[in-house]
Amino acid sequence: MIYSVIMAGGIGSRFWPRSREARPKQFINVFEEQSLLQQTLTRMAPLVPPERTLVVTHERYADLTREQLPALPEEQILGEPISRNTAPCIAYAAIKIQAMDPEAIMIVLPADHLVRKEERFLKILQQAVEVAKQPGALVTIGIQPSYPATGYGYIQYDPSESSRDGACRVRTFAEKPDEATAERFLDSGDFLWNSGIFVWRADAILTNLQTHLKSTWRAFEEASQHLGTHYENAAIRQAYYKSTRISVDIGIMERAGNVYVVPGNFGWSDIGDWRAVYDLSNKNRHGNVLRGNVIVHDTSRCLVNAGTRLIAVVGIHDVVVVDTDDALLICHQNSTQQVKNVVDYLHANQHKNFA
Amino acid sequence: MIYSVIMAGGIGSRFWPRSREARPKQFINVFEEQSLLQQTLTRMAPLVPPERTLVVTHERYADLTREQLPALPEEQILGEPISRNTAPCIAYAAIKIQAMDPEAIMIVLPADHLVRKEERFLKILQQAVEVAKQPGALVTIGIQPSYPATGYGYIQYDPSESSRDGACRVRTFAEKPDEATAERFLDSGDFLWNSGIFVWRADAILTNLQTHLKSTWRAFEEASQHLGTHYENAAIRQAYYKSTRISVDIGIMERAGNVYVVPGNFGWSDIGDWRAVYDLSNKNRHGNVLRGNVIVHDTSRCLVNAGTRLIAVVGIHDVVVVDTDDALLICHQNSTQQVKNVVDYLHANQHKNFA
Repeated sequence: MIYSVIMAGGIGSRFWPRSREARPKQFINVFEEQSLLQQTLTRMAPLVPPERTLVVTHERYADLTREQLPALPEEQILGEPISRNTAPCIAYAAIKIQAMDPEAIMIVLPADHLVRKEERFLKILQQAVEVAKQPGALVTIGIQPSYPATGYGYIQYDPSESSRDGACRVRTFAEKPDEATAERFLDSGDFLWNSGIFVWRADAILTNLQTHLKSTWRAFEEASQHLGTHYENAAIRQAYYKSTRISVDIGIMERAGNVYVVPGNFGWSDIGDWRAVYDLSNKNRHGNVLRGNVIVHDTSRCLVNAGTRLIAVVGIHDVVVVDTDDALLICHQNSTQQVKNVVDYLHANQHKNFA
Repeated sequence: MIYSVIMAGGIGSRFWPRSREARPKQFINVFEEQSLLQQTLTRMAPLVPPERTLVVTHERYADLTREQLPALPEEQILGEPISRNTAPCIAYAAIKIQAMDPEAIMIVLPADHLVRKEERFLKILQQAVEVAKQPGALVTIGIQPSYPATGYGYIQYDPSESSRDGACRVRTFAEKPDEATAERFLDSGDFLWNSGIFVWRADAILTNLQTHLKSTWRAFEEASQHLGTHYENAAIRQAYYKSTRISVDIGIMERAGNVYVVPGNFGWSDIGDWRAVYDLSNKNRHGNVLRGNVIVHDTSRCLVNAGTRLIAVVGIHDVVVVDTDDALLICHQNSTQQVKNVVDYLHANQHKNFA
């Protein structure tokens, strides 16, 4: 059977002040009526029903997840006691799924991404599932790059070795590049954006965990003895504290053999900051994206996201405005990556209630 | 005796959203702990005590005035039933003062201006009072222009005829000029900014009213019979409805003989918009004027006036931000005159609660 694992543990501080430590990006509705997490569950439903979906999140967000996903059986919300990046998160999900179905295939995906072409997306996932049926295969989804992005990691594939399922063998993973490198990647034609979406059999990822991240594997292997008992929570807590803080990309994918990528093009974005929200939104004829009670005069290329207050914007161009009950952000479109600095400042200066 | 008349009936829509129809500019604290009205009373106190000060305002602001000026005897707040510009306002004050002291000299001044050099200001007023003692003299205070302002009216004086009190005879009054005309005024050396501050005997202004604005004079002449009786309010109401809507500058000063100007230089501004507040405020080393709970990052030449909320400003230059509980303004420094348009829009579009 196919299971999906939605990773919902991120903080998303670049969406301050709409996102907060108490309600990160995946729990807010950036575009739609639904939160990004809710959209992710809905998007997957034709392929994987909620009954076979796990959501892994920090335990402090378990209540919020339950509230936002009433269709999800409560025991399928896996609370992480501490954030240790994606490798332990995936290990936890893998032992849970393995216990339910030793032959299971897992689709692992972030809770806070945007997909605008949902049918194509599902088709690509189905392809990836076919590839993942090969013994030991680890499959990633790569996005056809449309511009030399510096905000994404890249996957280089081997163009000479493509399988009948449209998958290519992966040559290397590359971290977020500088501009010149990103240009070179784009020109080369054999680099894809790393979407952070993975498909594999649970036993395949556990075998690779054993090979490449031994202590993490051992921690979860021990914990797996206690699944379904009163000791489960305590055992998982121990496993997390014994695990290495590392991403699955660096900890496993870069080191493993038998790694494939399925290239896709389905209107994907990781919506990294408010600028991305602006870029991905429908604009009016002045290039403005206005939400809520907003009056504009001689204003263009602005994203104005009002809360309960009236906002009047006069003579302003290329600016993002996000208003909430207790905090307001005014930020140039070219500075939206720096919003993170504001949150860091708030943490460092006893303003944690705003962070 | 010397009386002062503080004109506090303005709307000041260019200070939205801090100023509202329910609390116009003169009642808000633009710079200091005190409102502009309170500062005006305090500033005048060494020359004219509250016991001889009248405040003329729209009757809807009478309570607010009472609240802000507890030292002012309640009966010295004159409520106007309708706004008819400055000529009827001055007529009302003149008949009240005339009834108390037929020899009285009146200093008439707006409630919402800034004076930074208070001692010099009082000295200039004392000079003007001396000039106003001449029978029939109407005296204005003119400001030495420091730049070719297009936002002020001008007074041209006759340089050949200056009196021993430092007053000059007025040749003409000029409306707000265009830029070229303003340059010419400045170069000529005999033009001053019209401060809207006047000094005269009550009987002198009433005589001129009789000559130049006959119907307004007759209306208030009739009303003056009922001062101190139960009919006073009704009589004043009638007088306002019978009066002409006109400024004292146009209705009387431009037409009268015997008009003098005393030139002064006392750090004066009519603080016409948020830009003026920025210009007149102390700035930090990035040229920012920050008030309240504000975090800035890569931001310069901004005025940020926070309410109860935290405001974070990132990558923004030359912008005014004014936050209140129910409305927020974000406006380029070069567009602050257009804030008036927002208020007009609110009035025209059933958003009067925000106006």
